[in-house]
Amino acid sequence: MPDTAQLSINLATVRQQWGLIEALEGVARAGIPAVAPWRDQIAAAGLKPAVQRFRDLGLVCSGLCRGGMFPALSPEGRATAHDDNLRALDEALAFDAACLVLVVGGLPEGSRDLADARAQVEDGIAALLEPARAAGMPLAIEPLHPMYAADRACVNTMAQALDICDRLGPGVGVACDVYHVWWDPDLPAQIARAGRERLMAFHICDWLRTTRDLLLDRGMMGDGVIDIPAIRHMVEAAGFEGFHEVEIFSAQDWWTRPPEEVLQTCIERHRTVC
Amino acid sequence: MPDTAQLSINLATVRQQWGLIEALEGVARAGIPAVAPWRDQIAAAGLKPAVQRFRDLGLVCSGLCRGGMFPALSPEGRATAHDDNLRALDEALAFDAACLVLVVGGLPEGSRDLADARAQVEDGIAALLEPARAAGMPLAIEPLHPMYAADRACVNTMAQALDICDRLGPGVGVACDVYHVWWDPDLPAQIARAGRERLMAFHICDWLRTTRDLLLDRGMMGDGVIDIPAIRHMVEAAGFEGFHEVEIFSAQDWWTRPPEEVLQTCIERHRTVC
Repeated sequence: MPDTAQLSINLATVRQQWGLIEALEGVARAGIPAVAPWRDQIAAAGLKPAVQRFRDLGLVCSGLCRGGMFPALSPEGRATAHDDNLRALDEALAFDAACLVLVVGGLPEGSRDLADARAQVEDGIAALLEPARAAGMPLAIEPLHPMYAADRACVNTMAQALDICDRLGPGVGVACDVYHVWWDPDLPAQIARAGRERLMAFHICDWLRTTRDLLLDRGMMGDGVIDIPAIRHMVEAAGFEGFHEVEIFSAQDWWTRPPEEVLQTCIERHRTVC
Repeated sequence: MPDTAQLSINLATVRQQWGLIEALEGVARAGIPAVAPWRDQIAAAGLKPAVQRFRDLGLVCSGLCRGGMFPALSPEGRATAHDDNLRALDEALAFDAACLVLVVGGLPEGSRDLADARAQVEDGIAALLEPARAAGMPLAIEPLHPMYAADRACVNTMAQALDICDRLGPGVGVACDVYHVWWDPDLPAQIARAGRERLMAFHICDWLRTTRDLLLDRGMMGDGVIDIPAIRHMVEAAGFEGFHEVEIFSAQDWWTRPPEEVLQTCIERHRTVC
């Protein structure tokens, strides 16, 4: 098979250069079979025309980004989040996504109660799981790096995500992003524990030794310190056969380059260092 | 007892404003009984005069910063690190420090082999443990936040540090810094597991919700999201009775303020929010 057959581009990787329709066309033109779109990109393009172009181009959706952001200080805030997650679910279904990726949310502004935020996350996923199961859309909890525990996601390890999966049952699994989990001494054991059914997405990029920004300084595969082949082998040994989804937020580097060059570099690096 | 009786100032907190001697005098003047000096500060002041002034002022040393940095690409590099750690041990003894804090080091430049770096760390600590035990100086492994796994420390959780302690036996424990561990879902269990003998230091500061820099944007206690009293209660429940050592690297905020103001704020915040 062509060496792009397992490649997917998370469209955040070219979000500063391209809107959704342009990005779908650019990815297809590069011979890459799959994408992961973001909801703000979909909203800007319009759901119907976006899905239409996506289908016309024969693309596959390796995951929709994103649902989640469950914790809130008030019941009203949590209800608003739930309603928004139902819309995310509809969009994931419209794209026939492999999963709806969940970035679960951090501490509500003003709170220091991490245990409560984590309990709210679990309740929120449980509430979303019923309609998700009914619709046949897998929910993929993405453990985020601990440096995002305050403001983005209070689920920070594979073990923690899988504990939630264990308690909630079928229909919910994990998105394993090397950027978030590469440092975890328990990673091999937790990937094995996840298993084929619960490994719903595999995201790649690299951790730059000198990282200049907590959010927007991810590296291209091969430019950093992550042993990506080792982690790829772990997920494959656990049965994962899905896409390798490149997701790079890079305000000062890759977002400033011509998007065609970024995609060609993704293809080249995926072949040579992943 | 006065409310500063358990307070210690890690001298990194005022390192941009004061050299070592000035800092020792400033801390004593503020009625704070303990400090944790850094080796570069000691080198700049001279070990003998530094220790002399420290003793004359009647201060206590809650920990010497720092030994560690074990991994290297070559045996020569590791031997150099070992020799430097022997000097760190001597300095810790000169200050009669409660412990020598170990920041263990990350991946050697050019390496992606995290498991090997971790094995090197354990070997390095084992080699340092013999002279440390003979001299009666406790070694405190400081697990650093996972965002430092590449460049500063590949021991990133309390569990990982305690696994090393379990294998190496008496004389080595942990330094628990709320900044590094607050996010860890396993923290309560691991603090209890550590126990009184192995909880050798307790460092406080705060995690700012909007953190602008990976290294130099720590917050003053109360300005961030860490539930410091909860963690303090955990370490006390485990038997810890040592100092609460304030360690704040803050290039854009606290390092720009008059150092007397910084110390007074440490005293005030320690009383009100820790």
